[in-house]
Amino acid sequence: MVIIMQREATPEQLQAVIKTIEESGFKAFVNPGVERNVVALLGALDAEKVRLADRFSVLPGVERVAPISEPYKLASRETHPQDTVVRVGKVRVGGPTLAIIAGPCSVESREQTLEVARAVKAAGANMLRGGAFKPRTSPYAFQGLGREGLEILAEARAETGLAVVTEVLDPHDLPIVERYADVIQIGARNMQNSRLLQRVGQCGKPVLLKRGAGCRVRDLLMACEYVMIEGNHQVILCERGITTFEDSTRFTTDINAVPVLKRLCHLPVILDPSHSAGDWRYVTPLAKAAIAAGADGLLVEVHPNPRDALSDGPQSLEPPKFSRLMREATKVARAVGRRMPAARRTQ
Amino acid sequence: MVIIMQREATPEQLQAVIKTIEESGFKAFVNPGVERNVVALLGALDAEKVRLADRFSVLPGVERVAPISEPYKLASRETHPQDTVVRVGKVRVGGPTLAIIAGPCSVESREQTLEVARAVKAAGANMLRGGAFKPRTSPYAFQGLGREGLEILAEARAETGLAVVTEVLDPHDLPIVERYADVIQIGARNMQNSRLLQRVGQCGKPVLLKRGAGCRVRDLLMACEYVMIEGNHQVILCERGITTFEDSTRFTTDINAVPVLKRLCHLPVILDPSHSAGDWRYVTPLAKAAIAAGADGLLVEVHPNPRDALSDGPQSLEPPKFSRLMREATKVARAVGRRMPAARRTQ
Amino acid sequence: MVIIMQREATPEQLQAVIKTIEESGFKAFVNPGVERNVVALLGALDAEKVRLADRFSVLPGVERVAPISEPYKLASRETHPQDTVVRVGKVRVGGPTLAIIAGPCSVESREQTLEVARAVKAAGANMLRGGAFKPRTSPYAFQGLGREGLEILAEARAETGLAVVTEVLDPHDLPIVERYADVIQIGARNMQNSRLLQRVGQCGKPVLLKRGAGCRVRDLLMACEYVMIEGNHQVILCERGITTFEDSTRFTTDINAVPVLKRLCHLPVILDPSHSAGDWRYVTPLAKAAIAAGADGLLVEVHPNPRDALSDGPQSLEPPKFSRLMREATKVARAVGRRMPAARRTQ
Amino acid sequence: MVIIMQREATPEQLQAVIKTIEESGFKAFVNPGVERNVVALLGALDAEKVRLADRFSVLPGVERVAPISEPYKLASRETHPQDTVVRVGKVRVGGPTLAIIAGPCSVESREQTLEVARAVKAAGANMLRGGAFKPRTSPYAFQGLGREGLEILAEARAETGLAVVTEVLDPHDLPIVERYADVIQIGARNMQNSRLLQRVGQCGKPVLLKRGAGCRVRDLLMACEYVMIEGNHQVILCERGITTFEDSTRFTTDINAVPVLKRLCHLPVILDPSHSAGDWRYVTPLAKAAIAAGADGLLVEVHPNPRDALSDGPQSLEPPKFSRLMREATKVARAVGRRMPAARRTQ
Repeated sequence: MVIIMQREATPEQLQAVIKTIEESGFKAFVNPGVERNVVALLGALDAEKVRLADRFSVLPGVERVAPISEPYKLASRETHPQDTVVRVGKVRVGGPTLAIIAGPCSVESREQTLEVARAVKAAGANMLRGGAFKPRTSPYAFQGLGREGLEILAEARAETGLAVVTEVLDPHDLPIVERYADVIQIGARNMQNSRLLQRVGQCGKPVLLKRGAGCRVRDLLMACEYVMIEGNHQVILCERGITTFEDSTRFTTDINAVPVLKRLCHLPVILDPSHSAGDWRYVTPLAKAAIAAGADGLLVEVHPNPRDALSDGPQSLEPPKFSRLMREATKVARAVGRRMPAARRTQ
Repeated sequence: MVIIMQREATPEQLQAVIKTIEESGFKAFVNPGVERNVVALLGALDAEKVRLADRFSVLPGVERVAPISEPYKLASRETHPQDTVVRVGKVRVGGPTLAIIAGPCSVESREQTLEVARAVKAAGANMLRGGAFKPRTSPYAFQGLGREGLEILAEARAETGLAVVTEVLDPHDLPIVERYADVIQIGARNMQNSRLLQRVGQCGKPVLLKRGAGCRVRDLLMACEYVMIEGNHQVILCERGITTFEDSTRFTTDINAVPVLKRLCHLPVILDPSHSAGDWRYVTPLAKAAIAAGADGLLVEVHPNPRDALSDGPQSLEPPKFSRLMREATKVARAVGRRMPAARRTQ
Repeated sequence: MVIIMQREATPEQLQAVIKTIEESGFKAFVNPGVERNVVALLGALDAEKVRLADRFSVLPGVERVAPISEPYKLASRETHPQDTVVRVGKVRVGGPTLAIIAGPCSVESREQTLEVARAVKAAGANMLRGGAFKPRTSPYAFQGLGREGLEILAEARAETGLAVVTEVLDPHDLPIVERYADVIQIGARNMQNSRLLQRVGQCGKPVLLKRGAGCRVRDLLMACEYVMIEGNHQVILCERGITTFEDSTRFTTDINAVPVLKRLCHLPVILDPSHSAGDWRYVTPLAKAAIAAGADGLLVEVHPNPRDALSDGPQSLEPPKFSRLMREATKVARAVGRRMPAARRTQ
Repeated sequence: MVIIMQREATPEQLQAVIKTIEESGFKAFVNPGVERNVVALLGALDAEKVRLADRFSVLPGVERVAPISEPYKLASRETHPQDTVVRVGKVRVGGPTLAIIAGPCSVESREQTLEVARAVKAAGANMLRGGAFKPRTSPYAFQGLGREGLEILAEARAETGLAVVTEVLDPHDLPIVERYADVIQIGARNMQNSRLLQRVGQCGKPVLLKRGAGCRVRDLLMACEYVMIEGNHQVILCERGITTFEDSTRFTTDINAVPVLKRLCHLPVILDPSHSAGDWRYVTPLAKAAIAAGADGLLVEVHPNPRDALSDGPQSLEPPKFSRLMREATKVARAVGRRMPAARRTQ
C-alpha cells in the first residue's frame, strides 16, 4: 500500500504519516519524488488494507492511498476511463487525427534536416523527429551533433511549423533539450533509467516514451508511472519492436501491444515501423497495420539519402517513399475512422 | 548441391547419377521422395559447383541441379516471381479477394458446427474451419470427434457451400481427412513433422501450413519445401503467433512475417488473429492489421458460446462479434485494394 | 476433471461412466488411449468436484479420478515423490551413476559408427546415440540411412555392449525402430506430435523425450504425460536449448530447466550440450555445468571427422576432445556426489 | 574506421586529423570522450582502409587506428589475449581464486546489513553487495536508503574487511557512490545508458557491468567498450538472466554466455544465480553450474529473513543456505581447478 503525499505537504505532515504507520505496527519507507513524496506502508495483510486506507487518507497532507497490488495506477484506464489527449502546440495526440512524426534518425547537418523537414511536411506529417543526442550500441558510432543539432531542429520548426520531437539521454542535458524540444523522447535503451524518467516527469513538456526492446508491456506502463507520479501526465507511449528469436527482421513488431495498451491505459499509443522491422521495405505495410490495429500515430524515419545516413540508413525511407506511405496510410486511416493530419490542411 | 530427379526417372537413371557422383570423387546421398528422388552431392567446393552443375544437368532423368546454399527453392519468389493463387473449389486464395476461413476451434457437435457455419457464411466467410482431430498440449484435454467430426463438417459444407479446412495429425489419418477436407491443415505443433509434411505433399488437396510457435520464418519456408518437393505446390502459409517473453498475450503476433513472407516467397500468406493473441478482445484489431499489412486472408475462431467451448474459448468470437469484424475488415480491405468474399455475393 | 479408466475396463463400464456423467448434468468426452480410456467431465464447478470425484471413483472400471486443474499428473513429483530410475539393460538412468550417451548425430556408415562407438566406449560412455531416421529442417539435407542405419547401430552394440538410443520420426517406423533400439528417442521437432507420443507410450522400450526448442518446461511435462498415460513410465527428459534472441550460440541452453524439472517431476533429466550451443567449443563447459546443476546425464555428439559430418558437424567433438570432456566431467560429477559410468568399469 | 586520439592530444592535432580526413574526400565525426577523442572516418571502402590506416596512424596525437568492422575492440581477446585480472583491494577477480560477492539486494537497515555481512564473511565470501540506490520497475517500490545506505555499507566493510559492491543509477550520484564503493555496479536496466557508462569509465574504481535482460552478448561487450574507451579497463562482466518465453523461472540463465564471453573477451565474467532464476530454490544448483562452466565468480543475494525483504525476497538465501551453497560450490571449484576465497583464510 502506498500513501501519495500532496505536492504542498510539509515535512511535518510527512513525519506524521510515518509515525502513524509505525505506531500501527508497520514499516514505512519514503520514496522521495521531486514534486511529491510517496510513502510505502509495508507488512499489512490484504484484509487490513481497507481499514488502513481509510485511516491514512484523512491525514493532513495525504493526496490519496493506493493498494500496491495495482502495479500501475496513474496510467491505468481503470482509474481514468476516458482517452487522454496529449497537446503539442496545435497538434492533438490521441484524438481522431493521427500523429505522424517523421524525420531523420540523426540530425546530421542543417541541409539534410531542412530537406527532410520540408519533405515530411509536404507529405502530411505534423511533427518532426530528429536525434541530436544519439544513444548508440557502439561508442564508435556517431553520437549526434548535440546542441548544434537542437538548433538545426529549431530552425526547421521555425520554417515548417512542425513540432520537434527529440531524445534526451541524460538528466544533465534535460534543460537544454527542454528548451528546444516540443516533445521530449525517452529512447528504448533508457526506458528503465528511473532517474531520467523522474527528471522528465518534472519538466513541462510532453514525453514520448519508447518501449525497451527487452521489456514487457507492463514494464513500459511501470516506466510511464515513474514519469506520471512526478506530475507530468502528458505521455505518449511508443511500440518499437521487441527482441525475439526471429531474425528475418531486426526486431519483432509487437502489434498486439497496440490494442493491449489501448485497453489497459488511457494514454495515446503510437508505433515506430522503422525500428520495429529495421528494413525500409517493411515500413509501409507495418505503418498501415499499426493504424488498422488502432494506433494513434506513427514515428517514421525519413532520410534524403539513406545509403549515406550516419545511423539507421537501412530502415529509413526516402521522401518519395514516405509520400507513398502517407497516401496509402490515409486510406487505411479513413477505413478505421481516423484522419491523417494532412486532411486538415485542406480544410 | 542437389540433383532433383524427374518424376519418371528410372532406378537405372538414379544409379547412373550416383555412380557419376562417386566417380567424380564426391559422396552421394539419396533422399527418396514419394514422387521423385533428390540426390545430394556432398563435398564439392563452391568453385567446382558450376562445372558440376553443367555435368549433371544433362544426365538422363535429371530434372534440374540446384545449389544447396539456397535454403528453400520451390517456395522462393526468386525462382517463381509471380504470386501463386491456390484454388479451393471456386475460391481463389492469393488473388485480389481475401480468403476468410472461420469456424470453431473444434467440431464439438452437429448443432454447434452447423450454427457456426451458417453464421460465418452469413457474415461473409468463404471457408469453414473446424478441428476433428485436435492436437492438444494436454492428453487430458478434448482430442476431437475424429471421423464423426469430419462427417459433420461435410454436412456443413453441403448446406452452406463453404469449403472445409481441417487438420491432420498423423499420416495414418490422411486418407480419411483427405476424403472430407477441401484444404488439409498442418498445425503449428506439426510444422516440423517431416513425415507428415511429405505425405501431405503427395495428396491432391491444397495445404494450409501453420508456422510453429518457436519457428523462424525460414523454418516455415523449409517446412513448406518438404511439401512442395513432393509435387504439391498448393500451399497456403499461416502466421499464428510466436513465443516471446511478452506475457500480456498468449503469443506475439509476428506481423512482420506477413510482408517478409510476401517478399521472400510466392505463396499466399494468411494470419490467424485468434491464436496469435489468445484473447478475443484483440482479434478484430489484429485481423484489420493483418489485412493492412498485406495478408491474403484470415483464419478466425468463431463459437456460438465461447464459455462452453471445449477448446480455445477465450479467443473465440461469438457470431455477432465476427460479423462486426467482417464489416470493419471490409473497409480496411478496400483501403488496401482488396475485396472481401462477401462483396462477390452481392454482385 | 478426468476419469481414468482401468486398462481392463469393458465398453459397458465406459458407457456406464458416460451415462452417469450425463445424468448428473455434465458433458462427457472420451479420449481413447491405446491401453485405457480417459473420460473428461466438463462443466463442473470446483466446489462440486470433490463430491463428484467420490461418486465416480467407486464406479466399476474406474482406475482413478483426477482434477483437470493439475496440468500434468503422472510426471509430477507430488504424486510420485521418489526419483524414478529408468533401466536400460544394465544401465540405470536417474540413480547415482550418470548416463553418458554419446555418438554421431547421424549414422553415416558402418566404419564411422563403429569407430565412434569404440571411442566413446573407451572414454567411458554407457550408451551410444546415432540417428538412422533424421529430422532435418531442409528436405535437401541428409535424411538418414534408415533401416541400414539401425543395423549398423545393432552391430556397434554387439561389439561394444553399449545400449543404443535412436530416434523415431513416424508411428509407421516404430516397429522397426523398436526392434533395434534400447531407448526410443523423440526429437525436439516432434515433441508435440501427439500421435507419435501416444504410440511410443504403448511400446515396451524406455523413451528419451527431447524438449522442443520453442516449448516451455510445462509443455515438455505435458508431452511426457501423453507417453505416460499410455502406460509407459520409463521416460528420460532432455533439455537441448531453446530459441531466444541471443545469437552468439545456436540455441540458449536453459540450464534452469535442470533444477526446475528435478523439482517438479520424478523422472531422470539429462542435457544435450551439443545442440544447446551448436558449437563444439562450448560443449565441455556446458557438460560440466549440467552435471553441477544436477542433471542425471549427458547426450553428446561425437564424430571422427566433424568437418565431413553429414549433419551437425560444427557441434560435434572429435574422440580425443570427448575423452577430455569425460575426464573433466568426472571431477565435477564427484564434486556433486555422482559417479561417471567409467568408474564402474574399473570395479 | 575510427581514429583513437591520444589522451594528451591537443585540439590542434584533432583538427589536423579532421582536416586530413576531409581533404581525403571522406567525412569525419568526432565522438568526444572524457579522456580522449575518437574520430570516425566515414565513407571509405574496405579496400582503401589499409592505406588510410597507414596514413592516419602516423599523424601527431593519434593513438591508433582501428577498423570499424570490429564491433568491440578494447574488450576483445584478439587484441588482448591474456586474461585481465581486476584488483579490488586484496581481492583478485579473474585469477584462480573465485570472487564471491554476497549480500542483501537492498541495504534496508544497519542491523540487517551487518548481520548479512558477518554471515557471508563467515561463509567465505570476499565481497559484500548491497544496494543503496535501487533501480525498481515500479516507482511505488522501495528505492533504497541512498547515502545512509552507503554509510552502512562502509561500516560493514570496516568491521568485516569485505570490499563493497554497490550500484550507481545516475551520473549525479557517482561522486558519492565512488567515495564509498570499492566496485561500482552498473545494473541491467542501465546497461545501455551510455552517459552513465561514460562517466563510470572516467572514475578510478573497478566496474561490475551487468547484462541487460533483453540484450545480446555483443551488446554487453559494446556497453563495456563505452566504459573502457574512457580509460577504465577494470571491468567485471556479469550474466544475470535474459528474458525468454520460459516462465517457470523469472529469467533464463544464459549459461552459454559464460564460455562465450570467456572466449571473446579477456575480462572476468561472473554470474548472478539469484536474479537469473528469481527463485532461491534454484540458486545453489545454478551457482555450481556457473563455476563448472568457467565463471570467475558469483553474485548472490543473501538476506536474514527473505520473507520480510523490501526487494527480491523470493530469490534471497538465508545465511545457513548460503553457507551450504559455499560448501557445495567449493567442491565444484576444486573440480575445475579453481579456489574459493575461503580456502585462503585457512592458510
